[in-house]
This record gives sequence, C-alpha cells and structure tokens, in this order.
Amino acid sequence: MPAEAPAPFRRLAIVGLGLIGSSIARAARHYGMVETIVAIDRDAAVLERVRALGIADVATDDLVAGVAQADLVILCVPVGAAGAVAEAMAGHLAPGTVVSDVGSVKVAVVAAVAPHLGPGVHFVPAHPVAGTEYSGPDAGFSTLFSGRWCILTPLPEGDAGAAARVQAFWEGIGAIVETMTAEHHDLVLAITSHVPHLIAYNIVGTAADLEAVTQSEVIKFSAGGFRDFTRIAASDPTMWRDVFLANKDAVLEMLGRFNEDLSALARAIRWGDGDALHALFTRTRAIRRGIVAQGQETAEPDFGRSRAERGKTGEG
Amino acid sequence: MPAEAPAPFRRLAIVGLGLIGSSIARAARHYGMVETIVAIDRDAAVLERVRALGIADVATDDLVAGVAQADLVILCVPVGAAGAVAEAMAGHLAPGTVVSDVGSVKVAVVAAVAPHLGPGVHFVPAHPVAGTEYSGPDAGFSTLFSGRWCILTPLPEGDAGAAARVQAFWEGIGAIVETMTAEHHDLVLAITSHVPHLIAYNIVGTAADLEAVTQSEVIKFSAGGFRDFTRIAASDPTMWRDVFLANKDAVLEMLGRFNEDLSALARAIRWGDGDALHALFTRTRAIRRGIVAQGQETAEPDFGRSRAERGKTGEG
Repeated sequence: MPAEAPAPFRRLAIVGLGLIGSSIARAARHYGMVETIVAIDRDAAVLERVRALGIADVATDDLVAGVAQADLVILCVPVGAAGAVAEAMAGHLAPGTVVSDVGSVKVAVVAAVAPHLGPGVHFVPAHPVAGTEYSGPDAGFSTLFSGRWCILTPLPEGDAGAAARVQAFWEGIGAIVETMTAEHHDLVLAITSHVPHLIAYNIVGTAADLEAVTQSEVIKFSAGGFRDFTRIAASDPTMWRDVFLANKDAVLEMLGRFNEDLSALARAIRWGDGDALHALFTRTRAIRRGIVAQGQETAEPDFGRSRAERGKTGEG
Repeated sequence: MPAEAPAPFRRLAIVGLGLIGSSIARAARHYGMVETIVAIDRDAAVLERVRALGIADVATDDLVAGVAQADLVILCVPVGAAGAVAEAMAGHLAPGTVVSDVGSVKVAVVAAVAPHLGPGVHFVPAHPVAGTEYSGPDAGFSTLFSGRWCILTPLPEGDAGAAARVQAFWEGIGAIVETMTAEHHDLVLAITSHVPHLIAYNIVGTAADLEAVTQSEVIKFSAGGFRDFTRIAASDPTMWRDVFLANKDAVLEMLGRFNEDLSALARAIRWGDGDALHALFTRTRAIRRGIVAQGQETAEPDFGRSRAERGKTGEG
C-alpha cells in the first residue's frame, strides 16, 4: 500500500485463529494495517495461545461482542462453518461493516454467508493462496502472505468501495491481489489445489494399506518422490473435508480429466509407448520453469532440503 | 566407514556423468574413497563440463579404455541403456572387477546387465534413493547421498565380498545401506517413487491442457498445492521413460491400487461422506510424521520456502 493512503480499516475482528487467522493477526500488526485486533475463537486452548503469543489486543470466545465494533470481520474458519458463524453474528454488525473470509472455496461460501448479512453490511469474499502443512495459532507467521496471491471474488451486486478497501488491506500485508468470479475461482483452485491435495491424500493412504511393502519401507525410501506428497497430505483434515464437500462439482470435473489422462498414461506404459511418455515428461518441465520464474517457488534443488539439514532454523 | 578400514576400491570408473554420476565422483573424492576417478561419457559437452569442474582425474568418451583398469565400475546411465553399456565393456573388464549401477529399477537391469558379464566379474546392483529435479554434471554435489538410503540387491549367486565392498563404498560417501531382493526393490520403489512421479507428471499435463483455466493461472496459483507436484514432474524425461518401461508390472499393479482408492474417495465426495474423508485425512498425517522423524525430510513449514525467498543461496 502506498505510504500516503489511509489505512482501510481501524478495528479488525478475526474469527478463527488457526494458521491463516493467526498469520493475518501477526501481519496486520507487523505492517500496521489496523489499530485494534480482536481475536475470536470458541476454543479456550486457542485463545490461551493467542494471549500467550500476544498477537491480538482482545481475545474472546464471544462472537457477538467481538465483532460488534469492528469495521472489518474476517472469517478464518473451515468453509463448512462459515454459514453458521455468519448467521450468529449477522444481527450484531454495525452498518458499513465489511465482512470477508479466507475460504478455499468461494461459490459455496457466498451461498452460505451472503443471505445472512443485512443490507448495510458488505461481503467481500477472499482467498489468500498461501499456507503450510501446519495448523493452529502457533503455526502462523507474519510473512505468510508476502508475494503470494490473494484472490477476491466480489459479488456482482456488491459495494465496489468495500472491495477496494479489502484489496488495500491484503496488499498492505504483502499479498498480490487478483479479482475473478467465484465460479472461476472454484475451477482454478480445483486444479491447482484441491485435486493435488486429493491425490496426495490418496497415494499416502494407498501406500499405508499395502501388504507387500511395509509402512517402515515407505517412510525409509520416501526420498524417491513420495515425501513430496506427504507434506500436503498432512494438512488440516477438517479444513480439507469441508473443501471437497463444498467444491464437489469442480473437484469431480477436474478429477475426471485427471483420470482420463492417467488412463492414457497407463496404457502407454502397458504397450511400451516410450515416445508418448517422453513427450509428456518433456512438456511438464515448462510449467515448472514458469512457476519458478514467477517467484511462486524457489529454484533451489530439492527445495533446499539438503541445506536445511545442514543448519535448520525455525520459522518466525 | 570406520577410519581403520581399508578403502574398498582404488580406481573408480563412472559411466554417465549426470546428476547421480557426477555426485558420486564428487563424493568419492570428497570422502577420499578411491585413488583415481575415471569419468566416461559419450557426450562431448558433458566431458567438457567434467573437465572444467575438475571432478575426475580422467575424462574420456572411450568406454573400453576407461573401464580397463578400474576395480569398480558404476553405471549411471538411464536404465534402458545399461544393457548396451554392459555388453560393450564386458570383454574389457579385468578379472575381479566389481560392476554396480544406480538404476531406479532392479529386476530389468539385472536381466539386461548380468548375462554380459564374465564369471570373474562381480555385479552388485545398487540404487541410491536420492536426487533432485535437476540433471547433468553441474547439478551434482558431494553431499547428495548424506543420510540417504542406498539399496543393494545382490544376486543370490553373487560374491558376498564384492557386495560388502560396494556397501563400504556407499557408507563411505554418507549413505545408509539396506539390502533386499531386486523384486522387492521394484515393488517398494513403485509406490515410493515411480507412481508418485507418474501422477505428478500426469496432473501437470492435465492442468496444461485445460480450456477453462489458463496456464498462466495454473502457474500463478500453484502455491495452493500444485507446485509440490511440479518439482518431480521436472525430472529427467529419458530417465523416467526408461523407469516406467522397465518396471511396468509393479507400476501398473501399484497404479491399480491407487485408482481403486481414488475411486472410493471420489465416491465419498460425490455422496457427501465427510466422515470417510476426515478419517483418511487424519490417517495420512501419521506417515508424514514418520518421514520427518526419520530424518528423510525437514520439519520446517513449507520446506523452508519462505526462508529461501528471504535469502537464497546456491547448492554446492
């Protein structure tokens, strides 16, 4: 955000202090984006950690009181819970309040949240495409969104000023903002995030169930490629259950494409069609180069794992 | 290797100076495991890099002369090329020479290589489970095998002393050695390496072919999980073509299991069976913890990517 622009919001209420919620709290303070941060969570253990970490000005389990004076409320709960939270707080939001979220699915969240919010409240759905495989308030850090994309899916009939302020907030904590429809978001994320998670969860499950290969062998020899899948297969189970249920159509559509292609690949292996295999394996390198070139990944070999082993440092 | 043990070999000939071959050369020198290193490659550009990097005492495209006086010859060529190399060099190996390899498939390599080697030559198949997504002599580094597993699959009728010397060599350059049959190796690697590579190549290909989502969007929003797949889908196309063709049966068998499980998962999504999804997603976390606990992966969030972005350093 340019230095001369006024801060878009003064009082931020975050509902759900997991990895993402706690990172937003840390980032909002680190970048001086709001005056007051209210952390709302129904889990007493989470609130205790929030207080110990000192990442919010107020930590409460009282949703109604917590959101009452906020001018920005961000829902950082699993997408399956967003509707219920919206319903519970809707009557207690001040006119002009902006409500946003961080859900990995947008059509279902809009359908669940928007009907509850009164006409004076502005809903601006958002999705920061960032994360790690860790969960909970201790896992967050203030630079999680730096250089990462945050997708906004403003409602067609929504308030443009509110969307601009949410954009300014995300840009202020380091993200790059892109705007698209909720429907398109759900398709894009189905292929870039949801199906990858699904097949990662799946192969880790398949490996665990084999009789001919022990779990100990799977773990020992995981450096051959398997371990790359286990990171995302260690992501939060509740969050991901909700994502798959909420984005069912797009996930099944993209999974159908994946399966068709995989069948063709299996057939090429069965019939010894080395040229088809080589052609695909060459083509896929280009996408990797694009990802590295755009700064969404390091070019270091092996993600710098070898380096990490030589001198491991913690993430702040 | 204990300090008092004699070096198991004096003259090492490496055939194929790619990522693995050049890493073995660097490691053998770094750890003082042999007196002389002979680099053999038919590619003049590779030999030029080997000479410039100074990682071998001799660099030659003459296979017969290169292996003539070696007491250890390691084939570091794609598995589909191992048989032809063995045939070409077989008559020129001194009695007592130990031949090994680094192939990701073992049954097919044994079948292709062993028949060519005379009775006085000892073949000890090996597979170091280590690598990065980069290829070529510049990509190697001396610590690639440190703390990584190297699997030996000695022939049932093979020379036990030769196998022990190959084990000592690998332990001397930092690897942990495990011995199993070639058949079991191919099953284990099918699930821990080959099928993961196959589905990574596949989803990157699927994503590239979509009409509704642009390649630019796939690249931009890859941080949601997709990028984890692109690393291994950037691996050497020729090597991997050969792996899939050479380990066809085990790969198709494991792929069949994967597909059955994926169908069940798709069905759970279609019918909204959140409990089944949550149960699997919880179970898969345990395998991840095992991999981190056994030192085959860093526990840093996001592979330390955020850290890498703050201060990127090269890999030696």
